[in-house]
Amino acid sequence: MSAIITLTTDFGSGSPYVAAMKGVMLGIHPAVRLVDISHEVGPQDVRHGAVVLAEATPWFPAGAIHVGVIDPGVGTARKLIYARIGDQQYLAPDNGLLSLLAQRHKPARIVELANAEIWLPEVSRTFHGRDILAPVAAQLSLGLESERLGPALHELLMLDWPEPRRSGNRVDGTVRWIDRFGNLITNIGAAQLGDAEKMPAVRIQCAGREIAGLAQVYSERKPGELTALIGSSGYLEIAVVNGSAAGMLKAGVGAPIVVEW
Amino acid sequence: MSAIITLTTDFGSGSPYVAAMKGVMLGIHPAVRLVDISHEVGPQDVRHGAVVLAEATPWFPAGAIHVGVIDPGVGTARKLIYARIGDQQYLAPDNGLLSLLAQRHKPARIVELANAEIWLPEVSRTFHGRDILAPVAAQLSLGLESERLGPALHELLMLDWPEPRRSGNRVDGTVRWIDRFGNLITNIGAAQLGDAEKMPAVRIQCAGREIAGLAQVYSERKPGELTALIGSSGYLEIAVVNGSAAGMLKAGVGAPIVVEW
Amino acid sequence: MSAIITLTTDFGSGSPYVAAMKGVMLGIHPAVRLVDISHEVGPQDVRHGAVVLAEATPWFPAGAIHVGVIDPGVGTARKLIYARIGDQQYLAPDNGLLSLLAQRHKPARIVELANAEIWLPEVSRTFHGRDILAPVAAQLSLGLESERLGPALHELLMLDWPEPRRSGNRVDGTVRWIDRFGNLITNIGAAQLGDAEKMPAVRIQCAGREIAGLAQVYSERKPGELTALIGSSGYLEIAVVNGSAAGMLKAGVGAPIVVEW
Repeated sequence: MSAIITLTTDFGSGSPYVAAMKGVMLGIHPAVRLVDISHEVGPQDVRHGAVVLAEATPWFPAGAIHVGVIDPGVGTARKLIYARIGDQQYLAPDNGLLSLLAQRHKPARIVELANAEIWLPEVSRTFHGRDILAPVAAQLSLGLESERLGPALHELLMLDWPEPRRSGNRVDGTVRWIDRFGNLITNIGAAQLGDAEKMPAVRIQCAGREIAGLAQVYSERKPGELTALIGSSGYLEIAVVNGSAAGMLKAGVGAPIVVEW
Repeated sequence: MSAIITLTTDFGSGSPYVAAMKGVMLGIHPAVRLVDISHEVGPQDVRHGAVVLAEATPWFPAGAIHVGVIDPGVGTARKLIYARIGDQQYLAPDNGLLSLLAQRHKPARIVELANAEIWLPEVSRTFHGRDILAPVAAQLSLGLESERLGPALHELLMLDWPEPRRSGNRVDGTVRWIDRFGNLITNIGAAQLGDAEKMPAVRIQCAGREIAGLAQVYSERKPGELTALIGSSGYLEIAVVNGSAAGMLKAGVGAPIVVEW
Repeated sequence: MSAIITLTTDFGSGSPYVAAMKGVMLGIHPAVRLVDISHEVGPQDVRHGAVVLAEATPWFPAGAIHVGVIDPGVGTARKLIYARIGDQQYLAPDNGLLSLLAQRHKPARIVELANAEIWLPEVSRTFHGRDILAPVAAQLSLGLESERLGPALHELLMLDWPEPRRSGNRVDGTVRWIDRFGNLITNIGAAQLGDAEKMPAVRIQCAGREIAGLAQVYSERKPGELTALIGSSGYLEIAVVNGSAAGMLKAGVGAPIVVEW
């Protein structure tokens, strides 16, 4: 197996901090395959990081190791953890960064990183990504058993990820994240809409605007028009054809979404 | 041969969509070499993507596979295609994304992607980059013959890429793209200027300003001064020494350029 | 050994110029490992590039080859050089880009790139990164001896990197760079503060504000509060908990910092 380590941080593209982590990992495992998922997570935005990890990582081959470093509490009592979720492996601070993934699939194994023998000899107080997570990920990619990382934990820290509520012919949800196109991706999954998806009379409300009907593809409507559809991750999405729904609606993460039919 | 797949999209650096494509490809071909060309193509800006592909891909070793996903018509009747252009291979929507390359070198082979057996089992309507192009690229990188992808096509969709017009001692062209430095890169090639390049009396007009003479290198003039030179891709470029010509001239893609001598 | 080449430029993430360099290198050494350090160095900002290289590259395995292309004088008489600094190898224009590294560790070997036999056959006047540095890096990664690159030099161009001055219980320094979080990273190393780091009465002044005491970790103070601590590279840092010190203080690179105790 070709071992894969991915990186998701809030350091910014081109940060020397990311490169330092890569240097540490390549020093331990020169043949490991490094994949950048994102370094554009909003600074200290653990929820944003959690969504990025939940969207991207399930597409990787089984056993891939995903390192997440959005870590405003670095150096405090917050734990660093290893978790196996689905068929993927994760290393991250225990601050909720893995909690959207964990809500979807119960972690099969959680371990607290406590075995300092496999960390860098000198651990700074402000950059555990480089000094702890990077060497641990590299050792795992070489075949180290996760039991060796530290003691097992029963649970990881869960953030509140509101579920949409259905009552009769209505579902209430919220915007979960916004992609680069300004598409508003909600927490309302296709399954939660049931038959509504096929009903011509479905209406979607967001930020004081109402959209009639669900489109199949972005370009079904005219450029500049507001549209709603089930996006590529299986969630209801509000989009503007060749434009930005976030910009047009001035709507952000957490904005309420109502679907009625 | 070490198989190479490159990626050019408008998803934005750090998009989980890019990572999902990489995960899919690594699942099929764990040893493939992935190279990011750009994820900073303007949203839905097919022309921008076409220029990036034309500038970057000819520098890759023969046989490299280049995947382009700037795809505003995803899910509509627009085709997805494979094309061999020069000694490189391309996978993209047939929306003009390959047309600047195809204008420079006639494609040796064009195929419509139709063989769904090599796609992901479930194809979304909004993300063919992940569900079709990624698995097809990975299979090609493993040695699948392009004949297996679908039926041959005679042509791909060509956008209009205006050629500069020469009349007497004058060439009329336009700005084709703008790089990060704010340099205006035109569609006027060195060959089209003929001997003009060496004439001290050459004058370049752009956005109401006139530049006298062609420089050899950026720093030939003083910081802040406007200059014109033949850039590294062989095209006439308008630049500001240690500054931004796009900013100074308020000129964008398509702005007219006149060269006289 | 798995040969590593890293890239640090001011071309911008997603620039086709970066991809062209990668294509050239992969054509010469298909198995080389390419690592992006940063393409977000400020345009023509040699000092910024110097800091990025000094922060990131020492974390790489011995022998890694680091290519830096922040090159406002491309095509002029400025030299291109190879340097061995610490256990790392560097290729860059001789414009000060390696001078912060060279101030920390005297280069063991400096060579002027003069052997055009290993460059691309056609060298443009405006993109030596692609036409000279990329092929030279690839050849080095294949095992070419640095003696073959050209004649030895005695020194490289040094920029002035002001050292902090200590007098009695006071150290005067400056802000050296600003990271993505808006943290102000100074040129004052932990060693220069001596015992001050442990003194509760230490006071840090910056941009008309005073900070009392040194924190151990970012989150020791309340969100929005100004704090000072020794950062992960061993230098004094001014930060705002979950915010931007650069934004709050309107302070930039070069701003004076005073530490008293």
